[in-house]
Order: sequence, then C-alpha cells, then structure tokens
Amino acid sequence: MSIPVDHPRYHSLRVRERLAQAMQAGVVAPEGLCAHGRGESFYYLLGEQTIPSAQEAARCAAALFFVAKHPMISVNGNTAVLAASEIASLQKVTGAMVEVGLFHRTEERILMITDLLTAAGVQVLKGEAERLLPLSHDRAFCLRHGIYEADLVLVPLEDGDRAGALALLGKKVITIDLNPLSRTSRTATLPIIAEVTEVLPLITSYATSLTQSEAISILDTMPDPVWFLQAALDTISQRLSHVLD
Amino acid sequence: MSIPVDHPRYHSLRVRERLAQAMQAGVVAPEGLCAHGRGESFYYLLGEQTIPSAQEAARCAAALFFVAKHPMISVNGNTAVLAASEIASLQKVTGAMVEVGLFHRTEERILMITDLLTAAGVQVLKGEAERLLPLSHDRAFCLRHGIYEADLVLVPLEDGDRAGALALLGKKVITIDLNPLSRTSRTATLPIIAEVTEVLPLITSYATSLTQSEAISILDTMPDPVWFLQAALDTISQRLSHVLD
Repeated sequence: MSIPVDHPRYHSLRVRERLAQAMQAGVVAPEGLCAHGRGESFYYLLGEQTIPSAQEAARCAAALFFVAKHPMISVNGNTAVLAASEIASLQKVTGAMVEVGLFHRTEERILMITDLLTAAGVQVLKGEAERLLPLSHDRAFCLRHGIYEADLVLVPLEDGDRAGALALLGKKVITIDLNPLSRTSRTATLPIIAEVTEVLPLITSYATSLTQSEAISILDTMPDPVWFLQAALDTISQRLSHVLD
Repeated sequence: MSIPVDHPRYHSLRVRERLAQAMQAGVVAPEGLCAHGRGESFYYLLGEQTIPSAQEAARCAAALFFVAKHPMISVNGNTAVLAASEIASLQKVTGAMVEVGLFHRTEERILMITDLLTAAGVQVLKGEAERLLPLSHDRAFCLRHGIYEADLVLVPLEDGDRAGALALLGKKVITIDLNPLSRTSRTATLPIIAEVTEVLPLITSYATSLTQSEAISILDTMPDPVWFLQAALDTISQRLSHVLD
C-alpha cells in the first residue's frame, strides 16, 4: 500500500493513506473517506490555499468565540485524525469545551476518538448522550451540558443535516468546510470555506491577541454568510476561466 | 450504519455505503473511497447530468472502438463495483477485451474483481502480469497480450500516472473521469468528463448502431482533447455564477 514518492500527488495520497489507516483502526467511518475526497476537489479548485475571505472568516470566528457564553467545538473522526493538536491549541485559547459528535455513531468510536483527542492534549467533555437534536437517526445524540446548551458551536467537517439542526435550535454555528455549496456551508451563521488544518491555527492566532473592543467591532461589521460563500465561488470561477491557458 | 431515508443526499450516501461495503470485502482500496468523493464533487458541479460535450465524447469513443484493431478496457475496483454490468454490455458490442488494472495491486484483489466482473457477464483476460508500463511501483504491471499490445485503451476512473504511461506508449487513451482538471483527463486522447454508470451505456448505444463510414466521419471531425475539458469547465463556471441567486 506504500505510495510511490515520485507520484505528483504524493502529499494528497499520503493524507488519504493516513485516513485509510484510521478507518481500518475504526476511528474514521468508511464514508468519512468519501467526504474527505469531496473536500480534496474543492481544495484543488480553490488553489490549495486559504483565500482572503476565509482569513476574514477566521477573524470573525475568533470574535464569536470571544463573546460566546458557552462555546463548544464538535469533533468527528476526520477532524480528530487530521487536526487533534490544532483543536487542542484552539481550546486552550478560547476556553471552549470539546464534544465528540458523530454521524455514524457507536460508543466504541466515541471512545477511540476521545482517546486520540486526549492524547493530543484536548479536554473532552464526557457524559451520557441524549436524543436532543431535532433529527432522526443516531445523529440526534448529544450531551445536555455540552452542545445542547451551547450558544456557539464550531463544527468542522460536519454533516449538513446536523449543522442545520444546531442552527434550528437557535445556536450560532461556525462551519469549516471546503465546499461552498454544501448544505453545511449554506446553513452556517459563519461558513469558513477552508482546509481544516490550515484555518484552525489561524483562528487560534486571531483569538490569542483579540481585545473585547476589537471583538465587538469585528462582529458589528461581520459580513452576511452568503458573502463568504460567494467569495469562494468567485475564486473558483476565476481559476476555472484560465486554468487551461 | 444505515442511512436515514429522510436524508436529502440519500442516493449519494447509499452509493458511498456500497463502496464502503466493497472496501470491507477487500474489492475496493480505501483510497478508492477518497477518489470517489472527489468525483462526487465534480458531478455535483456539473449539475448531476451527462453534459452535451460528454455525449459527443461518448459518440467519438464508439467510433474509436469501431476502428481499433486491439481495443482493451482497463477495469479497477471502483469501476467493477459501480458498473460491472455496463462494462459487460460495452464489451459485447465492441468486442473489446477487459483487463483488471489496479493502482493498489494485490493478486487477491485481482481475483476478487475478476470474480465480480465474471458474475456480471464480463469476459476477463487472464495471464501472467509483467512489469511493462514505464512506471515505478506495482502500477507498472499489465498483461503483454492485453493492455501492453493494445492500440486503444478505455480507462474509467484511472490514476493519472497510469493513464499517462499508456499515452507515452503511443496508445489512444479514452478516460472517463468527472474531474476535467485531473491529470487523467488532461492526459487522454479522448477525455470523457462524465459519471461512469451514465456514460458507459451511452457509448454502448452509439456503438450498437454505428456504420464504418459514420465512424470515419466522426473521427475526421473529432475535437481536440482540450475542447472537451474546456466545455466541462465552462459548464461548471456557468453554474457557479448563479448558484446562490
């Protein structure tokens, strides 16, 4: 299964291999690999970079964390495998609690992901999950004193239905998703169209130096969610127009 | 692991689940799921349809099969799981031989995919594979009396390096790939930018009614490969420009 080092997409194939191994260990659901592939396409279309509008979104995210009373970070298998230490750093700066939230939920996977996050320095909220989200299926499960009572939830790489259910409950929802057309992105209060390992440290960095007056001023002028989506779509359109030149 | 039927992307999730099961059975490589996800994104961007330029490409593919002396179809795990019976129909009409070609090659997977194809009515070429393609890694393996001696190879869902190696050997290469920017698509003699289960029956249907003079006339006016890529990119650009309206 080793990837030939002379392959032009070596890095991308290595990340896939890491996720494949995590899947074989049971941490990532098989469908998580498909979801990752979808993200890869959009990352490529965006020029494999964090575009300026996403940097602006990261700044707004830092401000939302600053003023939130009960901020949560919902972490699934893909996020844990790709970005456990980046989550730990963001948690230290924002004081947000971390809850494991899974689309394909089993207690075994919850425990494995919790262990993986804990090993990276994340403090994971534990407890008895209840069916509290307005969704069919096991996706409805979350912790009462965690995501259910939160006023702000950051959901990197989340399923669109689950992100939508959180918004329906009146929470501010920050998503991180490379697809500006996904239901996840279109549901968010603040959609961050960016690669998760690149943009989490950016949020952390903004949050580190933020003052209260800066946070309030950022939120006063925060663009509409659609502005962030359109900026990403415009970037893709511009790139497509001269990619074969 | 069951998908809630009220989920708005039920069909797409079901196909993923099928591939996930095939992976657990060892037929599809884990990385094949990522590759499928990449395709899903582009399918969505293209409007989940076979665009007119891809229909034209299918007509050209039928003509290339008609005039080929030794046409081959290279089938990997994803293609076998998604389109075994469509491959069988195309083989019947074109007389092309089918060879199993894998990026993540093991003899066990070759046998499993061969069985799966055979059960669907495909005649699979067998023999002792040799390192005949100009590639590092086990990707170099193919059959001497199969792909190595072919003048035309159809490679649905192929890795870009492998498609490139076939082109280097002077073969005409028809690719089926939803990503118009992939190296696979940009390497092809004839890049078909379409979903494999939709476009294979279209090629079969064109091939069924083709006469020699029609085939020659189609090939005389066959567009440049870049024309097919640009047509797909234009479709995506147009869709992106008013998707948030």
